[in-house]
Amino acid sequence: MGLAEDIIHGDARAAAKLISLIEDDAPEAAVALDGLAGHVGAAAVIGVTGAPGTGKSTLVDALTAHYRSADQMVGVLAIDPSSERTGGALLGDRVRMQRHAADPGVFIRSLATRGWEGGLAGAVAGALRVLDALGRNIILIETVGAGQVEVDIAAVADTTLVVLNPGSGDDIQTLKAGILEAADILVVNKADRDGAERLQADLEAMTALKDDAWTTPVVMTEAVNGRGVPELAAAIVRHHAHLTASGELAVRRRSRLKIELLTAAEKAWRAAGTRLAGSSFLEDLLDRVSGGDLPPRQAAAELLQRLAGELGPDHPERR
Amino acid sequence: MGLAEDIIHGDARAAAKLISLIEDDAPEAAVALDGLAGHVGAAAVIGVTGAPGTGKSTLVDALTAHYRSADQMVGVLAIDPSSERTGGALLGDRVRMQRHAADPGVFIRSLATRGWEGGLAGAVAGALRVLDALGRNIILIETVGAGQVEVDIAAVADTTLVVLNPGSGDDIQTLKAGILEAADILVVNKADRDGAERLQADLEAMTALKDDAWTTPVVMTEAVNGRGVPELAAAIVRHHAHLTASGELAVRRRSRLKIELLTAAEKAWRAAGTRLAGSSFLEDLLDRVSGGDLPPRQAAAELLQRLAGELGPDHPERR
Repeated sequence: MGLAEDIIHGDARAAAKLISLIEDDAPEAAVALDGLAGHVGAAAVIGVTGAPGTGKSTLVDALTAHYRSADQMVGVLAIDPSSERTGGALLGDRVRMQRHAADPGVFIRSLATRGWEGGLAGAVAGALRVLDALGRNIILIETVGAGQVEVDIAAVADTTLVVLNPGSGDDIQTLKAGILEAADILVVNKADRDGAERLQADLEAMTALKDDAWTTPVVMTEAVNGRGVPELAAAIVRHHAHLTASGELAVRRRSRLKIELLTAAEKAWRAAGTRLAGSSFLEDLLDRVSGGDLPPRQAAAELLQRLAGELGPDHPERR
Repeated sequence: MGLAEDIIHGDARAAAKLISLIEDDAPEAAVALDGLAGHVGAAAVIGVTGAPGTGKSTLVDALTAHYRSADQMVGVLAIDPSSERTGGALLGDRVRMQRHAADPGVFIRSLATRGWEGGLAGAVAGALRVLDALGRNIILIETVGAGQVEVDIAAVADTTLVVLNPGSGDDIQTLKAGILEAADILVVNKADRDGAERLQADLEAMTALKDDAWTTPVVMTEAVNGRGVPELAAAIVRHHAHLTASGELAVRRRSRLKIELLTAAEKAWRAAGTRLAGSSFLEDLLDRVSGGDLPPRQAAAELLQRLAGELGPDHPERR
């Protein structure tokens, strides 16, 4: 059987292999991903973002335990945009979530996307497709790091959790930096700390200002002992029901697909540019401009025409 | 007369206008830049980089005074990648270099490149072409900020100065971060401070390790009172003579031209992507994939073919 068939039949090792191919940007990855079409769309995709140290990993671990107790099949993707590809599991995978390591109902994978041309979200969307076809009905995406990555994750998730802590000072600042728009549910983790109620009240005052069909709930958790996790899971279910009823789920899924397609185009463009950068065509062009035989704008037009040709569907070097 | 002719005849206001058009990414900019071909290549382009607070602005001011005392025509480009376009001079221009404000032999311009698609270096290369055609035989490029920008500037300058201070602690770290390769001359500014000789000795030990035809000199300056500036100017002349004699000048100019051409292609690609992102073509494609009528890889191929067509030379919307 091919890789796609193996994954559809629940083979986790085949899924890990295809995710490695996606990381490596291998041509077989696109073929196998096509084979998964028609077997995706059932999974709820939950993005977990927030500043370093807020307890995102612990929360993902606690949510995983909650879903497993209800016999759900869980996939966890940990995104680390700063790490190099390792061709497989990162050291972090072995350290994190040890209590689920022996459970075949939990598939844990780091995605090392440093140097992944054309944008992080495209690689994540591909990996989501794999876990979805593998039959994981809950997929948790955890980001390691902060900033732009979180916004990218929100673009591919159905439900985005933003995790904050009481007393960390930068909570409201974080939210102001465009994260509030991305948050479907706000999580005050380490809620046993001083200032938790105050933070919750501040956040609820902010979210009340949003003029939206969905009012972003603020959920208190202590991920380390599991307190608040059933309430968080219930909020996720409510959000998913809202997405389905309002038609927003289809909009988000369509947006994810759009990102995948545009990422594929961007990759092809980069590859064409790389081929041309070392070619005699470009050197000839530079000779002619340097020698005064060709105006720069005309040279730019010739370069563009050549690049367009490289992008064409029948180019032998394209894959 | 057109903008290009005005600039070739030394009209500084025309030059300022064309640089604004480049900042705005206006179609007339490319036409006017073509008109400058054959009137460029005489200017020595000197990039001045270094961490914030090292005295780059003061050094550029002191070098300007030095070159003006020798009746050279000077252009100064201040690059601020974090600032928005303002359609003209930034507030900073009026604050900086007030002593040269009334001197028509000094042309000072900030280049606000935030949001400039396709890379900073392309906008800088265009502005350099303008100042060169305007007859400025010395062009100083000063970066505001640090990091990637400095490497970009080194790619378009003939001679790159890296400015450091004694006792700032992070000097050697800065150099290790890829800046040493970019430095043609190292400048120890604020050389009256403790530790200047020690820093000079450390830097000379590092540069001696480079196996290159050009040994990077380490020049001590006190930009605030002009001390060491004639020696720095002499080192710049020696470096320029080395570039000319070794043929490296032609290589660097060619590399600058290559950056300009590739930037123009990148801009056209972004524009095509933006047009397509809101088109019914893309929406149809998404409908067909969502409905299961089209495998994602086939959709990516169709998208690419369409984008290639958009890049073609005869597309009506292209400029």
